[in-house]
Amino acid sequence: MSAIRPLKLDPDRFFPAEPNARAVARGLYESVQGAPIISPHGHTDPAWFATNENFANATEFLLVPDHYVLRMLYSQGIALEKLGVAPKGGKPTVAPQEAWRLFAENYHLFRGTPSRIWMDHVFAEVFGIDVRLNAETADTYYETITNALQSDAYKPRALLDRFNVAFIATTEGALDPLEHHAKIIQDGWGARVVTTFRPDDVIDASRSDFVDNVKALGELTGQDTTSWSGYLDALRARRRVFIAHGATASDHGHPSAATADLSRTECEALFAKCLSGQSEPHEQERFRAQMLTEMAGMSLEDGLVMQIHPGVYRNHNQALFDRFGPDKGSDIPLPANFVEGLHPLLNKYGNEPSFSLILFTLDETTYARELAPLAGHYPCLKLGPPWWFNDSPEGMLRFRQQVTETAGFYNTAGFNDDTRAFLSIPARHDLARRMDAHFLSRLVAEQRLDEDEAYELMQDLTSRLVRQAYKLPSAADDRAVAAE
Amino acid sequence: MSAIRPLKLDPDRFFPAEPNARAVARGLYESVQGAPIISPHGHTDPAWFATNENFANATEFLLVPDHYVLRMLYSQGIALEKLGVAPKGGKPTVAPQEAWRLFAENYHLFRGTPSRIWMDHVFAEVFGIDVRLNAETADTYYETITNALQSDAYKPRALLDRFNVAFIATTEGALDPLEHHAKIIQDGWGARVVTTFRPDDVIDASRSDFVDNVKALGELTGQDTTSWSGYLDALRARRRVFIAHGATASDHGHPSAATADLSRTECEALFAKCLSGQSEPHEQERFRAQMLTEMAGMSLEDGLVMQIHPGVYRNHNQALFDRFGPDKGSDIPLPANFVEGLHPLLNKYGNEPSFSLILFTLDETTYARELAPLAGHYPCLKLGPPWWFNDSPEGMLRFRQQVTETAGFYNTAGFNDDTRAFLSIPARHDLARRMDAHFLSRLVAEQRLDEDEAYELMQDLTSRLVRQAYKLPSAADDRAVAAE
Amino acid sequence: MSAIRPLKLDPDRFFPAEPNARAVARGLYESVQGAPIISPHGHTDPAWFATNENFANATEFLLVPDHYVLRMLYSQGIALEKLGVAPKGGKPTVAPQEAWRLFAENYHLFRGTPSRIWMDHVFAEVFGIDVRLNAETADTYYETITNALQSDAYKPRALLDRFNVAFIATTEGALDPLEHHAKIIQDGWGARVVTTFRPDDVIDASRSDFVDNVKALGELTGQDTTSWSGYLDALRARRRVFIAHGATASDHGHPSAATADLSRTECEALFAKCLSGQSEPHEQERFRAQMLTEMAGMSLEDGLVMQIHPGVYRNHNQALFDRFGPDKGSDIPLPANFVEGLHPLLNKYGNEPSFSLILFTLDETTYARELAPLAGHYPCLKLGPPWWFNDSPEGMLRFRQQVTETAGFYNTAGFNDDTRAFLSIPARHDLARRMDAHFLSRLVAEQRLDEDEAYELMQDLTSRLVRQAYKLPSAADDRAVAAE
Repeated sequence: MSAIRPLKLDPDRFFPAEPNARAVARGLYESVQGAPIISPHGHTDPAWFATNENFANATEFLLVPDHYVLRMLYSQGIALEKLGVAPKGGKPTVAPQEAWRLFAENYHLFRGTPSRIWMDHVFAEVFGIDVRLNAETADTYYETITNALQSDAYKPRALLDRFNVAFIATTEGALDPLEHHAKIIQDGWGARVVTTFRPDDVIDASRSDFVDNVKALGELTGQDTTSWSGYLDALRARRRVFIAHGATASDHGHPSAATADLSRTECEALFAKCLSGQSEPHEQERFRAQMLTEMAGMSLEDGLVMQIHPGVYRNHNQALFDRFGPDKGSDIPLPANFVEGLHPLLNKYGNEPSFSLILFTLDETTYARELAPLAGHYPCLKLGPPWWFNDSPEGMLRFRQQVTETAGFYNTAGFNDDTRAFLSIPARHDLARRMDAHFLSRLVAEQRLDEDEAYELMQDLTSRLVRQAYKLPSAADDRAVAAE
Repeated sequence: MSAIRPLKLDPDRFFPAEPNARAVARGLYESVQGAPIISPHGHTDPAWFATNENFANATEFLLVPDHYVLRMLYSQGIALEKLGVAPKGGKPTVAPQEAWRLFAENYHLFRGTPSRIWMDHVFAEVFGIDVRLNAETADTYYETITNALQSDAYKPRALLDRFNVAFIATTEGALDPLEHHAKIIQDGWGARVVTTFRPDDVIDASRSDFVDNVKALGELTGQDTTSWSGYLDALRARRRVFIAHGATASDHGHPSAATADLSRTECEALFAKCLSGQSEPHEQERFRAQMLTEMAGMSLEDGLVMQIHPGVYRNHNQALFDRFGPDKGSDIPLPANFVEGLHPLLNKYGNEPSFSLILFTLDETTYARELAPLAGHYPCLKLGPPWWFNDSPEGMLRFRQQVTETAGFYNTAGFNDDTRAFLSIPARHDLARRMDAHFLSRLVAEQRLDEDEAYELMQDLTSRLVRQAYKLPSAADDRAVAAE
Repeated sequence: MSAIRPLKLDPDRFFPAEPNARAVARGLYESVQGAPIISPHGHTDPAWFATNENFANATEFLLVPDHYVLRMLYSQGIALEKLGVAPKGGKPTVAPQEAWRLFAENYHLFRGTPSRIWMDHVFAEVFGIDVRLNAETADTYYETITNALQSDAYKPRALLDRFNVAFIATTEGALDPLEHHAKIIQDGWGARVVTTFRPDDVIDASRSDFVDNVKALGELTGQDTTSWSGYLDALRARRRVFIAHGATASDHGHPSAATADLSRTECEALFAKCLSGQSEPHEQERFRAQMLTEMAGMSLEDGLVMQIHPGVYRNHNQALFDRFGPDKGSDIPLPANFVEGLHPLLNKYGNEPSFSLILFTLDETTYARELAPLAGHYPCLKLGPPWWFNDSPEGMLRFRQQVTETAGFYNTAGFNDDTRAFLSIPARHDLARRMDAHFLSRLVAEQRLDEDEAYELMQDLTSRLVRQAYKLPSAADDRAVAAE
């Protein structure tokens, strides 16, 4: 397993094997290969772009924060400590290079997974490595990557340029001071790097810190957040601050897509109950449901595009969570119900021309049954790209195959990478473009779409739809930015 | 987007791109290309065939009644009024040609959807148009189509001949006077155009007109529909009348596939409650469930084939429904459960040799998990073709891929178009034949089926299975009809 | 339909049609074509291997016990009696050859199903028949097969050798005396033929014989099974006996994947209630749930690999069950929920390095949403191959397509045939190897996997992973066995 093997990215990779379709796919892909990256939803750290400091080393930057990689290695019996993950409040117990070796020895586990695709792209394209990662090449890899990361060319802002990132949004909680985004604006990068308003911390009453967070929200905004109306005003205020730091969207990561449309009296009572710290799970669910409708109402006021990422059982592995904290790979999807869940919100705001709501799911059974029919009808709805576990070649094909015939292409919102793995952003966008070319080429090869239309769609899926869905400036403005 | 582009239907369209499979698919398709159309379930208006009057114009005939088209345009923010749709009790507020132009300008929205496939087929094959619809060609289209529609060759009965429709069933409510079907029989078209018994209006107690409908049912039949037994006798009587007007099938569009097998006393009490107008949703559901079993029992008596189309949340968009009424594109599928739902009915009648029950679904998760195992066991069950949102190239492939290995081909019921879009009937049957050829050709190319068997199956799927499932006369009788 | 047609198994069957992928698939398949069969889960009768007596005839051996075949024929209105199936407590009412003719006349019903693939393989490879089964060839078939079955070369042990079966596990209930396995060991076949511990009969309190079975369990083990602790000790004792008869695994066929982690007091009360014969369905479900966790605990003690096969509505057709008993083709899948269901068990034992739990499902919606994320995280979890209705070409592709990107290949457990149809075992393993080659060849042809890695995976999927998952000796030991 550890002989030295070449690492070579085939220029036609991920296109259909059938030569006619492959030729079409190649042409389509080449037409967008050089287009700037627009990344309207993700989890990179704004501190990187604010301070522009070098990243530490291969292990701390590429391995330890990647929960896709950690989960797979853990599933095969590899302890997280051995991968350099620090227990809560502790420090790593192995040397970074040792952890890297363990990763390298087990790199075969990623065969057939998108992590392998992204990683190989990073190794080959970002670091110029031309041999495959394995036990034998582990040290060369570690040194090549770690050395490169110390150079100016690998500073965060230089990489934004090199990666041709025209726009990237990070995600911050409602209480975040946004000091990094302030610095980013001050340094003239504000048109390219913006924040996103993610208020789960002050909305989800099932969190142990909810009551404290609502109190902090009051202090931060000068509103009386012990009252329902003061609480809403405080949220309005934070949204304004986020907008001032570039936000064009809010994001909501609820366990379900339930929404509600309660009377003011009911809202006040429910909020008081949640604030008492004595609320039951069904009340917390109802409160989250009501708050999605409130957030939609505020979007009508202030124009923020709304995103819902529902349906995850967070920290399913309690022992692992207790030891290492969240985001270590034990979040598991749940079945979703959008038709009943979104009904109250859609009945209230679904026909508002200025309202825009982008839906994501981890439950693919809802693609054809629920999401495509809903998005193919309600003017406010757009479908986000295949998310998380489904952000993969087969996942992307299933999305297009199950969504397009009912929702069309034009009720989708282009690609977003949703990642904290900064170096993988070009890999992820490249894969998405290749898979869109793959899907379109099959339609063309089967005479289900004319070729000129496929070319137009390729542009739309890569750039136009994402700009439209997230209310971003048009491509012309990029060029202005790029020319600065 | 509005340059003039050719519109050309490729003779090999929708076949697999891979040349070996494509050659097989072509041969299979050609073997059934000329077979008469049998349309055992649909929603064309019997008045067309009774009066044989010309259709009005492109907009009123092709655009306004097509809820697939309306929903997509509405989803992109186009008001229904601008498409020529009249508000309830009102009249259209735009000129038909203006509405058509708006449709034409937005025709790109339908890329990748079956509406585009059907429409292009209608434009090219029915009207002989050879340029693509867009803003530039909108007026030519409108005039070409509208002019043609005024000619004798485009009268409904002439089109039935031209389309080679050997048999078509419409769908009428239990209270329908069936005067159009009487006229059709009188004019000698009764062997080709028949009705279908759809009693939802007198069975679904959640409808606001249920109580009135049951009263009207009593008046129409001379039965005392205030009693359970009189109500059942009235339904029996209406079924006889429908059979006299050619019906070979009943159809049931319930929110779920729930069935029940209650005692007579329970039935009487439940019926009385529903008739009081004070029933709760769970009682209405239970009554619908019981009535499916009653309908199955009556099918044993009178031989009507039973169809169930369950699992739709009707009129999800309340505001749109209030303004425009039903069938404007806001019906959304729901999850279905056939295994528990059908158990009471199947336990009562599932082994009866003369009973025939055809199932449809909008919840594709039930294909492999529930419908194929059920249909692959119970003698009474057959699976209807992919329905509504799933009546599409990918939808048909998913159906065959997920159903065939457990239910085989011979527990399916051939294709039906289920449409009110009369001109699209040849397009829809053509697409179904092409996709069956596509699916079979892949089995042949992968040596999963011998070619001679694929040819036999192609005939079975196109003609024999649908005749058998709907108890229609054999193909020999068509030829007799055609020769008349 | 009954002309004489050749029966010929194409050497490239089931590979992708596209020539590049096909060439890769062929090479991959050939690399494992001769590998010994490892069958770690199935339902062959240990009496065959213990007594080594000849099988009776084509009908009694190939037709009557095959519920896949019975269900399909029954679904088309063929009475089970006519197929040679005896009513409960009765005898067959038709001659075996007559039943075989009816099967042969209806062989076209199996087009596109795995039964057809397996049967044709058996006919061609095991019996050397070179014409297709139909009405015309029925008698030749019957005689050829029945005659062959009388010869020494078709005795069970000779077939194990001919089929190159290195290892096969049968499945016995907790009360089984295991006398056949004792004989097998005594005759020196114990390393190749082992039992599996399936305790549903003494765990599922919804069974009418549960109370009697628990009593019998006490008698068999000398434990006081009227107490919770005595009941658990009796189970421990039976597990030890099964291990002594070669078992490396337990198997659990529950209606759902629910697990529980109750206090000792709750367990005692629940067990007492179940033992009273007065338990309610929800209590029986809770007891089964608790018992899965208990079984997991015992696996930690004694090392048995645990298998769960959940989610079947057994004997959905009550009338058929009353007349013919179980396993006649009316078991129907149910929706499953692994995320909530397995949580108690996984929270207790999910991180134990020595615990191994293999999951199966009939609800494919859980592949990408639940099973792959769970198996891609928990060290104890592995995914069994596509099961029962999904053990088919399309079913296998869906499994790999929906599972691999999140769980990888290395959290799957290789193939198992799960069959009582002994002669079909080579056919089933051959199909699985061909479909794995099919899937891998597409990854290679699309440059999603390097070819050298595909070859390594082909070995892993065929042999290594199944040995590892079921804790079997390594391949080196096979060769020792084969050389004996």
